Amino acid sequence: MADPRPRLIASDLEGVLVPEIWIAFAEKTGIEQLRLTTRDVPDYDQLMQMRIRILRERKLRLQDIQEVIAAISPLPGAEEFAGWIRERAQFVILSDTFYEFAKPLMAKLGYPTLFCHSLEVDSEGSIAGYRLRLDESKRSAVQAFGDLQFHTLALGDSYNDVAMLQKADVGVLFDPPQNVKDDYPSLPVVRNYDEAKGFIQEWLEGG
Amino acid sequence: MADPRPRLIASDLEGVLVPEIWIAFAEKTGIEQLRLTTRDVPDYDQLMQMRIRILRERKLRLQDIQEVIAAISPLPGAEEFAGWIRERAQFVILSDTFYEFAKPLMAKLGYPTLFCHSLEVDSEGSIAGYRLRLDESKRSAVQAFGDLQFHTLALGDSYNDVAMLQKADVGVLFDPPQNVKDDYPSLPVVRNYDEAKGFIQEWLEGG
Repeated sequence: MADPRPRLIASDLEGVLVPEIWIAFAEKTGIEQLRLTTRDVPDYDQLMQMRIRILRERKLRLQDIQEVIAAISPLPGAEEFAGWIRERAQFVILSDTFYEFAKPLMAKLGYPTLFCHSLEVDSEGSIAGYRLRLDESKRSAVQAFGDLQFHTLALGDSYNDVAMLQKADVGVLFDPPQNVKDDYPSLPVVRNYDEAKGFIQEWLEGG
Repeated sequence: MADPRPRLIASDLEGVLVPEIWIAFAEKTGIEQLRLTTRDVPDYDQLMQMRIRILRERKLRLQDIQEVIAAISPLPGAEEFAGWIRERAQFVILSDTFYEFAKPLMAKLGYPTLFCHSLEVDSEGSIAGYRLRLDESKRSAVQAFGDLQFHTLALGDSYNDVAMLQKADVGVLFDPPQNVKDDYPSLPVVRNYDEAKGFIQEWLEGG
């Protein structure tokens, strides 16, 4: 028998619906150092402080950054995919990006609900720091949705999604890199939006 | 100093963004008994069982009901108001209606996230019962958003909203009936979308 609880889909943002924002920003601006990720600099705070320092050195204020991000598009088909989900289930995006960066992309996705983090901006409009909303924010949100009696499916592509995928009633890897797939062989994998829709459709109808 | 947590607005649905669904349905179908609310029949389960019995007697299946609801419009200005909020904060609708009833109206509001309840539908497509997601579902959701480190503002118009208005960082009555206003004189009141926007704008900028 199907689970009677209403359905909620929690999805990662970067890599699932939009490109990796820092990498796309590095490409648009030609600032190679901003391509570095936690794979290159494992300490997240060290990485973020480096990024903030580079932006300051280049005299890039938040507004300049937002203008660059406004020229980035969601992944091809993402808007249609997000719309398809929203007609069928509740949909919340769980991301480790910052509201100030994500906003131009959210507009292009029809303003779905987004749970992420914030930047600190100084009086000159430069990024002065960042504020993580809470530790394990993706996993905590999925846990809260479960406590609120939703039947949850989570979608993500990388290591920082695994905790939420495991906490959800159903967790699915979306087009993951080979190493993530290898490290979590028990998680189902979908490679594109069509496969994701097929998987979700079965979950909506079944259990 | 402004609260640094990201902003989330939780809003009631009926009376704030759309008309009271049962009353609008009673008007469209001419079934006077469906106008009764918990003011007339205080026991909610008794009221719902009566409504389900009337629908069965009239041989109205869920699909028939949904077709009637599809002809109901959001309150004038509601879509613009919801869009205005979604450009400025996270937005979740908390309602005691049922997904099966709300869906045609959600389409007209651009599919915002909605936390509400579900109906049980039998093999003939008739409503057989209902399933409340959890007790105190609005208050629990606002509490969860707070635990997830959002700074919350809640908007509602009636007695079943008061618990969430009191649980939110800021609770606001939207165009409430006189008795609700009288019973909770400490809750701020806005009378229309323009006043609500003014109140929200100040809250977004300040505290």
